[in-house]
Amino acid sequence: MVSAATPGNADGNAAALAAARLIGIDWGSTGLRAFLVGADGLALVERATAQGAATLSGAAAYAAVLDQAAGDWMRARPDLPVLACGMVGSQYGWVDVPYAACPADAQALASGMRRTPDGAALIIPGLLKEGGGLPPDLMRGEETQIVGALQRRAELREQACIVLPGTHSKWAQVRGGRVERFATHMTGELYAVLRQHSVLGRLMPEAKDAGSFDEEAYCEGVEMARDAGHLGMSHQIFSARSLGVTGRMPTSALADYLSGLLIGHELRAGLDWRAEAKLDHAPLALVGSPALCARYQLALQRYSGVPALVLDNTAPAGLLSLAQAAGVVKENAA
Amino acid sequence: MVSAATPGNADGNAAALAAARLIGIDWGSTGLRAFLVGADGLALVERATAQGAATLSGAAAYAAVLDQAAGDWMRARPDLPVLACGMVGSQYGWVDVPYAACPADAQALASGMRRTPDGAALIIPGLLKEGGGLPPDLMRGEETQIVGALQRRAELREQACIVLPGTHSKWAQVRGGRVERFATHMTGELYAVLRQHSVLGRLMPEAKDAGSFDEEAYCEGVEMARDAGHLGMSHQIFSARSLGVTGRMPTSALADYLSGLLIGHELRAGLDWRAEAKLDHAPLALVGSPALCARYQLALQRYSGVPALVLDNTAPAGLLSLAQAAGVVKENAA
Repeated sequence: MVSAATPGNADGNAAALAAARLIGIDWGSTGLRAFLVGADGLALVERATAQGAATLSGAAAYAAVLDQAAGDWMRARPDLPVLACGMVGSQYGWVDVPYAACPADAQALASGMRRTPDGAALIIPGLLKEGGGLPPDLMRGEETQIVGALQRRAELREQACIVLPGTHSKWAQVRGGRVERFATHMTGELYAVLRQHSVLGRLMPEAKDAGSFDEEAYCEGVEMARDAGHLGMSHQIFSARSLGVTGRMPTSALADYLSGLLIGHELRAGLDWRAEAKLDHAPLALVGSPALCARYQLALQRYSGVPALVLDNTAPAGLLSLAQAAGVVKENAA
Repeated sequence: MVSAATPGNADGNAAALAAARLIGIDWGSTGLRAFLVGADGLALVERATAQGAATLSGAAAYAAVLDQAAGDWMRARPDLPVLACGMVGSQYGWVDVPYAACPADAQALASGMRRTPDGAALIIPGLLKEGGGLPPDLMRGEETQIVGALQRRAELREQACIVLPGTHSKWAQVRGGRVERFATHMTGELYAVLRQHSVLGRLMPEAKDAGSFDEEAYCEGVEMARDAGHLGMSHQIFSARSLGVTGRMPTSALADYLSGLLIGHELRAGLDWRAEAKLDHAPLALVGSPALCARYQLALQRYSGVPALVLDNTAPAGLLSLAQAAGVVKENAA
């Protein structure tokens, strides 16, 4: 399951190991990514496995997976700290690390870290947002990516809206280097359950048989949400069926149309929320996989051309920043 | 599978058969209900089976199920017309009956009926709404219930908003006895797929283990949608998880809280749509199962106390009205 990705290889590993400042682990529900992180916050080597927290139970299982993923690095460089973020720190994870409270900066997150029982790794807390008469909101792992985005792009520190698209998209408001407030949107999971388990998916080709991205249908969904979203998402998504049944849209286009509708509704609500917070003139950054960020960028263009900065995986940079904030890696040593 | 319900029994059947004007069939995706309909549009006998259109394929299968459900009635009263509505008339049903176009009254629906190949039954078309720069919307079966509501309550004929809560809730605008416009909300199906297949269901007790209706949690969900629904449904539903994870709400309350949020969003959009159509001073009627209508009534009370008329199953009345409109049952014979 463990595979070397960019730019690791047998020859490069020795140099990367020598240059590394940190062993960083992004350990979510469905997978684990391990990084040798350099002084600039970039991954010198990256490895990925499917052994996410949802597949594991008990400290021994976690310790074994960590050893399998990064044990060779840990033995070669026992001086390097090992820092992990994500669902590994949940109540169902390796160590139950209490959430840090919003607003929070890197220092607050660093203060909340907990060490694993075997002492092998430090685990970063997730973030909890409460107040304003609203229900609480939660993240685990994305706080580290946000800190990484601020490390990588200093212009985001003063004020910014940082959007992390995904199964549970997160929208975060940043001011003065702190995450002030954030909101989850279940866009990716809604798409998956509607496609796999609802009447909407029945007319759609299987995902594996689906062709390439249907940009026209996707944008039609985005514009439908932008222009008529007040009619309600629960209403609008039914059109992914009615357009198919009436032959108004080819069935091969329905999945991307639905994706456009759901992402369009996320943007509709998220951009209003950003404007309410008076962040509509602050930078908007998208952090995530290039393909998904491209989809969001396209949708943002349809919303009055809102421009976005796009950052790929910022977890390594966040892990390094948090290791520095915790004092386990020195800031000025290079 | 066939069972007699209110008020049929062996003794009553002979009298009911003698008094019946029509054999009516409400034949949806997941079940079939057969009625002996009296001159007043009420069911004299009702039977139900789980042999919905989604479980059947081919004319012979439909003919056999109809015979099993109502063959004894058809043989005892070969003079009675047999009229069916619902997914039985879809392209995947017994006969593909083209949708009637909105606006439509009982006469337009009657004109669109098609006879089954064996001549046993007439099938009512569904309704298609198009125009206004919006995607099409569809119903099959609910048009008959709406016609039945107008038959049962004359005060709804001039103008009304008729809401049929369910897996795919329908909101219909009626003016001058015609269905002018309608909109589907996927509320019931969203609830089911989120509960069974998403992260939101994982903290909830199994449906079979769930206790009685938690009215407080339900109303909290409704009010959250009413007061903060602009933050987006895709955002708000995640609170059914965050409230549970943080212990702010007992896990036994989360399912009803989610139900309140989803129904609250349906009302938020539906009541705005009704006001846009200037029907906010016209009667609002709920048509459906008493338990589900009670849930909607409770939610409507939280939306500025909108009062609603509640009608139970109006399909028998609708089937009789449409049989009369088609001339297969005489209006003035009693």
